Amino acid sequence: MTERSIAEVLFANEAFYAAFAAGSFEDMAAIWSDSDTVCCLHPGQPPIHGRDAILESWRDILRDPPPIRCVEPVLLPLGEEGAAVICWEVIDGGQLIATNLFRREQGMWQIVHHQAGPLSVQVSLSLPEEDAPHAVN
Amino acid sequence: MTERSIAEVLFANEAFYAAFAAGSFEDMAAIWSDSDTVCCLHPGQPPIHGRDAILESWRDILRDPPPIRCVEPVLLPLGEEGAAVICWEVIDGGQLIATNLFRREQGMWQIVHHQAGPLSVQVSLSLPEEDAPHAVN
Repeated sequence: MTERSIAEVLFANEAFYAAFAAGSFEDMAAIWSDSDTVCCLHPGQPPIHGRDAILESWRDILRDPPPIRCVEPVLLPLGEEGAAVICWEVIDGGQLIATNLFRREQGMWQIVHHQAGPLSVQVSLSLPEEDAPHAVN
Repeated sequence: MTERSIAEVLFANEAFYAAFAAGSFEDMAAIWSDSDTVCCLHPGQPPIHGRDAILESWRDILRDPPPIRCVEPVLLPLGEEGAAVICWEVIDGGQLIATNLFRREQGMWQIVHHQAGPLSVQVSLSLPEEDAPHAVN
């Protein structure tokens, strides 16, 4: 997988979380693949198969989105047309661990699968600088 | 993705669960990719990155494997060199939902990522016939 493809996949993964955090249904719909071989596993829920059902589930979530951030993404290449990103999701101080799958379709990296699951332990994460505690004057 | 590749990936997924259920460390080690870009998310646990650490975690699990079975696998193609299988794991009457990622390496489909997560609801599954309740005489 080329450096450019790796950067594009990580950018697509960031775009997924940006759409999630912003509550933008339009951006979320644009990031998900148009294909029907897509799947979404919301935490603790049974799988949702097919684009229409998946987007319907996101429509509900995005009406009142949590303050979610993706931390420490790690990319696994799957040939030239696919890739996985494993990352932490930090929500309201809680943590989930996620697998996001991307497929290149007409030159664009589109998400085709998302699984987020709960942790039974709390892990110390390297949060981006903007999240570091600030001194109170 | 060709019919043959689809069959091979589903067979590799079955082989993963056969090694798991049989407690065969050798079979599990053969199924996991030799590459170091591999990841494993056991239920509720933080991610394990790298082949050696992943196999070490399986060595512990496989000493006393649960009676695990894979139910209703669904394949998502990721180009010609990668694929995901989403499936239920039935363990001791409980259910987990899993994402397994496979990459074609030297002609063999090898697992490069596994995430299994708990469900907060119980789902009615179509179990294989051998698991249907038997009449008691």
